[in-house]
Order: sequence, then C-alpha cells, then structure tokens
Amino acid sequence: MNQAIGVFDSGVGGLTVVRELRQRFPMKHIHYLGDTARVPYGTKSARTVERYALTCQNFLLERQVKLVMVACNTASANALPALQASTSVPVIGAVHPGALAALAASRSRHIAVLGTLGTVRSGAYEEAIGQRDPSATVVARACPLFVPLAEEGWGDTDIALLAARRYLSELFENNDLIDTIVLGCTHYPLLRDVVSKVCAELSSKPVQIIDSAAAMVTQAAAHLEASAQTDGDARRGALQCFVTDESRMEELAPRFLGETLDSLETVDL
Amino acid sequence: MNQAIGVFDSGVGGLTVVRELRQRFPMKHIHYLGDTARVPYGTKSARTVERYALTCQNFLLERQVKLVMVACNTASANALPALQASTSVPVIGAVHPGALAALAASRSRHIAVLGTLGTVRSGAYEEAIGQRDPSATVVARACPLFVPLAEEGWGDTDIALLAARRYLSELFENNDLIDTIVLGCTHYPLLRDVVSKVCAELSSKPVQIIDSAAAMVTQAAAHLEASAQTDGDARRGALQCFVTDESRMEELAPRFLGETLDSLETVDL
Repeated sequence: MNQAIGVFDSGVGGLTVVRELRQRFPMKHIHYLGDTARVPYGTKSARTVERYALTCQNFLLERQVKLVMVACNTASANALPALQASTSVPVIGAVHPGALAALAASRSRHIAVLGTLGTVRSGAYEEAIGQRDPSATVVARACPLFVPLAEEGWGDTDIALLAARRYLSELFENNDLIDTIVLGCTHYPLLRDVVSKVCAELSSKPVQIIDSAAAMVTQAAAHLEASAQTDGDARRGALQCFVTDESRMEELAPRFLGETLDSLETVDL
Repeated sequence: MNQAIGVFDSGVGGLTVVRELRQRFPMKHIHYLGDTARVPYGTKSARTVERYALTCQNFLLERQVKLVMVACNTASANALPALQASTSVPVIGAVHPGALAALAASRSRHIAVLGTLGTVRSGAYEEAIGQRDPSATVVARACPLFVPLAEEGWGDTDIALLAARRYLSELFENNDLIDTIVLGCTHYPLLRDVVSKVCAELSSKPVQIIDSAAAMVTQAAAHLEASAQTDGDARRGALQCFVTDESRMEELAPRFLGETLDSLETVDL
C-alpha cells in the first residue's frame, strides 16, 4: 500500500513544495489541494486562516493521507497547533523547517524573514528561531507585491528588482549584520534571483537565501523514509491536484511545479 | 425615514465609490460591506464570484437598504443579472455606468478597459459598450499588480510607473486610436496619475481617463434624488462599515475613502 502525502496551500504557491517532494521522493503519491476560492490567506486574520486551514486538512484526511504538509507559510504561522491537535497523522508546517535551516546557515545570528502580512503579523518565525537560539535577532518584512509578480511571471523584471530593493533596503539600513534571508512564502522562490541580486547590492557580506519549501521536504524525509518499506509500488507516484475554484491553476502550475498537471479537479469546500 | 444605501465590494476598493457618494449625497446613510474574508474576487471564477456577491447583497438587504451599489467591477461583470433578479430593490453595478461614461468621452470610439482578470475574462465591458455602439472597438487588459500597488500606497512610485508602462504599452502598440481608458476596478483610481502619465508618453493624442466609481454615483443619482423628499433627516449621514474579516480595512480605509472610519464591525457570512 502506498498511502499518499497530502499537501495544501491557499493557491498555487505550494506547488514549489510538491516540486521538491517529487524530486526527492518520485514514487510517492501526492494529493495537492489549492484553496483557490479563498486565496490569498496572507492578508487575512489568524482566526479566518485557521478556519480555512482546518477545512483543507480535513479534505486531505478524508482521502487517507499519511502525512500532511502545510505548504503555506501563512497557514503554518497561524494554524499549525490547531492543525496538529485535530489529527494523529503527522503535520509538517513551513515555519519550523525554515527557521532551522536559517539557524544552520547564519553565522552572524541576524536573520531576515520575507513573507505575507499574515506571516509577519503572527511573529511565528521570531518565536521558532528564538526558542532555539534566544541570542538570534530576527526581523520580518511583508512583501505584498511578490505574489502577483511571481504569478505574472515577472520575477526577473526591473519591476521585481525595484520592489525587492524597496522592501530590502529598509531591512539592511536598520541592520547591516543580516547574513541570512528566509523566503517565507511558497511564491517567493520565483523571485530568488532578484532577492539575491539586491542582497549583493545592499550588503558587503555574502547573504544566504533560505527556501522554506526545500527545508520542509528535508523535515518530511524522516517520516517518508521510515515508511518507505511498506510501499510496494515502484512506479512514479501520481499527483492528484484539487482546487476550490478553477481560477488560473492550470495555467500557472508549470511555473511553480516544473511540469504540467495530469489531473485537476474542482471541489466545493 | 432615511433608509440607507447599501454598498459592497470584495474589500476596501469600493470605498472610492462611498467617497463619491458622500461628496454628492452627504446626508445619506450608507452601509458598506467589504468581503475581506474572500478578497480578491478578481482572480476567481464567475460561479464563485456570483455566490459571494449574492451573500453580500443578502446581508445588505436584511439591513433594509433602499438601493444596492455593487462597488466591485468583478462582481458587477459576473453577477449583476443574478443580483438584480434576486431583489426588487434597484441594484447598480459598475460596468454599465463606466461603459456609458466611456462612450460619452470617446471621439475615436476606441476604448481600453483596465481591470482584474475576472472582469477582463467576463467580456462585460465589451458587451455593455457594444450594445450601445456596435461600431466601437474595446480592448481589455488585466493589471494584477495595480491592487497591491494601491494597497501599499505605492500608486505614485517608479514601480507603479514601470508596471503601468508594461500593461499599457502593449495596448497602444496594437491600437494607437485609443483615446479613452476606463479604470475598471475600484482600486485603480489610486493609480490615476500614473496611468495618465503613461498615456501621455505612449499616445500623441489626449487620452481621457474614466473612473467607474464616479460614473456609478451619477447613475445612482436618479434613484437618490427621486427619493430625497421622503428623507426628513438633515444631518450628515452615518457610514456603517462591515467586513467579513478584520484584515487591514481600518488602516487602508482613509487612503480610499478620504476620511477615517467611525464604525467597523466584523460579521460572519
């Protein structure tokens, strides 16, 4: 029996996590839910995000997934305790893996987190990093233009460069010891090169860029390798994709996933 | 008795309509609903937008409004017939008033509409303009970066200028007869100056900019003036504001409304 992994996000961004998963665990079946009827979560209150995230997780649990990955930093930041309390299946969020990876990379212990308004407002990265290293300094900055820039396919344009410069210059002006930046939203890997370029302009020291999608898959690996022997099926795993509204998922998916979707179904939640 | 006017939008943008209303009808009471738990409508399917819009309108009708203004182009474009069919109260959308104002302004009969993806996909402006003047040419362009630019307060920055140039240059390259541009989203008036500047760069002829918010209030005037004599109350009307999620309404409202909110209540819909 090859039970599937469940992954959900507010929309299309979580496919960057699925992309990492499929590279490292190509035989795993994956059920992906993009809550495109309620996207974005990033501007909404903690209470609303928690309600939506529980609905998404319940949908995946009804499909018997053996592991849930919350491929949305906003949902992870605001709803992980409630999600974990409501099931015995392991639930992996984006924030703790991103925080661990940032601490492993930073020498100065000055870390910046870029995310949605909801992630920044939650203080979740500050808390996750502070628990492990109380001496670390964490600053977080909301970058609301990054999501539409990623979705427009403008991640490498002058517009993205100007926006990144505006968001990041304030961070480095206030703290020139920052040596690690967490891309704390699953859309942001599509602006990785622009962020990296702006860091090189603004800082005289090398700055590490941490992608929380990759960090999540590293944390999931423990659960997946431990259960590998029970999986008898050696073909490439199926990716079943669900959305709560048709929207642009099919058009946008290849940009985030690196492949086209085989299967896409709209569900009412 | 001074029955209130009901206005709804997916979020904060519809306050540009309320601003116009309060300038022209300062004594009217207004109930404004921003569906901030489901914002934005612009990226969602027609079916989903219609469902959300009906929920918003029902909330206002329960509050006994005498007129409903759909201060959201996406909802107007996708749901106006359903909204009108479900009540005997007059329902005014954004698209028809914007279309009429554009036809009144255009000499060349070549009109461009800027809006959300949902408004563009609906073809509602093409239809509304074409019904009145089949010889008119209408091109529509989605500008997804304009909403976060307006909300960030970056409407007059270089970033807005570059984004507007990118969106508009394609329009004028394909059709240099365009002499009228409709701001077909209630957020876009905050980018009016930038759009105007880019039009001056790209076109050798003067280009008129039509704000659908102002056009809606002109259409509403007939209903409001006709009922004016039944209103005995001569004080400034109250503005009661409701949202489906706390989000950033209170912080963003002054930018769109031109005044701070007296009253803000979160409701579950």
